[in-house]
Amino acid sequence: MKYADRILRLEDRSLLEAFELPVEDHYISFSGGFPSPETYPVEAISQAFLGAIAEAGPQAFAYASTSGLPSLRKKILGRMEAKWGVHYDMDEIIITSGSQQGLDMSGMLFVNKGDVILFETPSYLGAVNALRAYEAELVGVPTDHDGIEIDALKDCLEKYGERVKMIYVIPDYQNPTGRSWSSKRREDFMKLLENYEVPVIEDGAYSELSFEKEPTKPLCAYDSNGQVVYVGTFSKTFCPGLRVAWLCAHKDIMEKYLVLKNASDLASSTVGQYQMAYYMEHFDMDKHIEDISLLYKHRRNVMADAIDQYFPEEVNYVLPKGGLFIWAELPEGKDTRELLKRAIEKNVTFIPGSSFYPGDKRYHEMRLNFSNMADEDTVEGIQVLGALIKEYLAE
Amino acid sequence: MKYADRILRLEDRSLLEAFELPVEDHYISFSGGFPSPETYPVEAISQAFLGAIAEAGPQAFAYASTSGLPSLRKKILGRMEAKWGVHYDMDEIIITSGSQQGLDMSGMLFVNKGDVILFETPSYLGAVNALRAYEAELVGVPTDHDGIEIDALKDCLEKYGERVKMIYVIPDYQNPTGRSWSSKRREDFMKLLENYEVPVIEDGAYSELSFEKEPTKPLCAYDSNGQVVYVGTFSKTFCPGLRVAWLCAHKDIMEKYLVLKNASDLASSTVGQYQMAYYMEHFDMDKHIEDISLLYKHRRNVMADAIDQYFPEEVNYVLPKGGLFIWAELPEGKDTRELLKRAIEKNVTFIPGSSFYPGDKRYHEMRLNFSNMADEDTVEGIQVLGALIKEYLAE
Repeated sequence: MKYADRILRLEDRSLLEAFELPVEDHYISFSGGFPSPETYPVEAISQAFLGAIAEAGPQAFAYASTSGLPSLRKKILGRMEAKWGVHYDMDEIIITSGSQQGLDMSGMLFVNKGDVILFETPSYLGAVNALRAYEAELVGVPTDHDGIEIDALKDCLEKYGERVKMIYVIPDYQNPTGRSWSSKRREDFMKLLENYEVPVIEDGAYSELSFEKEPTKPLCAYDSNGQVVYVGTFSKTFCPGLRVAWLCAHKDIMEKYLVLKNASDLASSTVGQYQMAYYMEHFDMDKHIEDISLLYKHRRNVMADAIDQYFPEEVNYVLPKGGLFIWAELPEGKDTRELLKRAIEKNVTFIPGSSFYPGDKRYHEMRLNFSNMADEDTVEGIQVLGALIKEYLAE
Repeated sequence: MKYADRILRLEDRSLLEAFELPVEDHYISFSGGFPSPETYPVEAISQAFLGAIAEAGPQAFAYASTSGLPSLRKKILGRMEAKWGVHYDMDEIIITSGSQQGLDMSGMLFVNKGDVILFETPSYLGAVNALRAYEAELVGVPTDHDGIEIDALKDCLEKYGERVKMIYVIPDYQNPTGRSWSSKRREDFMKLLENYEVPVIEDGAYSELSFEKEPTKPLCAYDSNGQVVYVGTFSKTFCPGLRVAWLCAHKDIMEKYLVLKNASDLASSTVGQYQMAYYMEHFDMDKHIEDISLLYKHRRNVMADAIDQYFPEEVNYVLPKGGLFIWAELPEGKDTRELLKRAIEKNVTFIPGSSFYPGDKRYHEMRLNFSNMADEDTVEGIQVLGALIKEYLAE
């Protein structure tokens, strides 16, 4: 068979493998970006299922509209407005099948072959995969601890000019680094972008998983130009298995996303949408998110303490203030893919940092997920990794 | 904002409108391709939900694997083997979010800009939309009452040569015409295709909605070459709101679909998959499909009788032996888009035939869905249409 050219570009299988590999009990996995199943409010979801059926009857299993269940869209918009003071109209939000679908459709909507997409580096592997399929040139923009570097971004925008069709960013507790952009950096970013007719795809997957008192507002709150497409999801704050997520954008843009959504999968799961809407109406979602954020903060601390105890001093990391990941850096010249091979032999896994670079790669970093393992497994896994790293650095 | 070129190609909004328009009680709609909500086994789905949670616990709400829940894939393969004698291995099936996603991914997998996709004409609008986005040239191949015309197909294969990257067909109770290919035609088709390295996307959405005693086997049962990609779904036989569907193909091809599925939406709804698997294990799906097929056969008869009574003789149709649609033909030179305008004023809707032509269009046909309306509404709607058609033909 002859395949389309785009297939050749999808060579990184790390994410697929994280989804496909059988979960073996004897593995300690720091690989996935998965929230912890014990946090899923199973009892409430069940009540939401039965409640939704009682209210909607067989319609809960019919096709939903392509844009999504109106009651759910309204609830989501209400929350965004209450939390961040961001206002979108009802024709400026659609429900997607996971935020991954929102990223895929963003490539479909904005990107021709040969165009340029700018990424902060490193960046979310799933977005890199989804957007790589549109045969664009993926260009990484350096970041520092406050977010994407404005001067470097400006250079890229000037250098690639009209070829730049999209910027993809994760300003809150970023995947893979756990970093958050400062509010000053957000302002500067949006101010610079005003001069360019380029859409900003803002991935807010981790926005609400905050360990801080006052998390910063998302970019869409600074958007006076209708330039930001906000990609939101319940996968990290509630559960990923319902596949309920959303896109917000100016109505001119959203009208086109709607056509693509219809062509991609007609509509998202109806009953999943009814369940989310029912849950948001009858249960306390804010309290739930507060609870799981506390748990993840605890797990971050467990992992960080173990790293401090067991990793050699040459390994650097910055304590993240939210999200699901610690990003650790070995000395330059080392390759965490080699470390992974040895770790798998000891039944410990993580994702090598090189998987998160859309363009030029760096090989000496690693992403460690801290949300999904019990405390004792985290400590044990970090201890194993620490010993392996010491050996590897000594070679 | 600047959009990708592919957006310009998605100009037909009929399907989107069928999904987006508010369902108004005073409309008699023959538009959708929707099964009838009263047939959804709500009580059984509820039991399946609770049963699945009892069995799987929080894992029912975690991410599923990208390929899909093994127990569900096994059940589906078992049914295909039992019904049609078709065997696929477990690494030759993946779960998709509706069969629409399978069609979209097929474009993604096989089609470069400028390639040729062959369709039987007329064909399913949603497939046309999904595949149009990949910027191929869509070429219609004529059909007769036995299926796609083999000589015409051969001419197309020769004329376009290496540019042909895919053939999309619906051999069973086709959307929109309701026609089924004869078994002779299926054999001839597969025999011809053996000489060309072109994948056949077989859409089996209506295969099981048969009003015949012995429905014909799908093309994949005639496939000795690993050339057929079978697209199956529970949307028409069970309910569309769970968005559970599947793709079967030779493992070399499936490996690539799997990468695309991961990039598109990571995985399908976990709980929906658990529900389907539980239902298939604990309930009698064959009996359910038998029951709804009887209902749809009755509704087909009601519509056909009403057409015989109220439509003028100049309108032709062939009684379909399965599926959800009657395809009616006005005299050439007439345009059913004009008829639709007038029908909407009388609160009756359908989809004009021109929406179903990927390439050169014909304007004097119409698709009438018979599955979704109560008998008296069908009769009333057909009566209204009949009067309008008589008026229109007299002009």
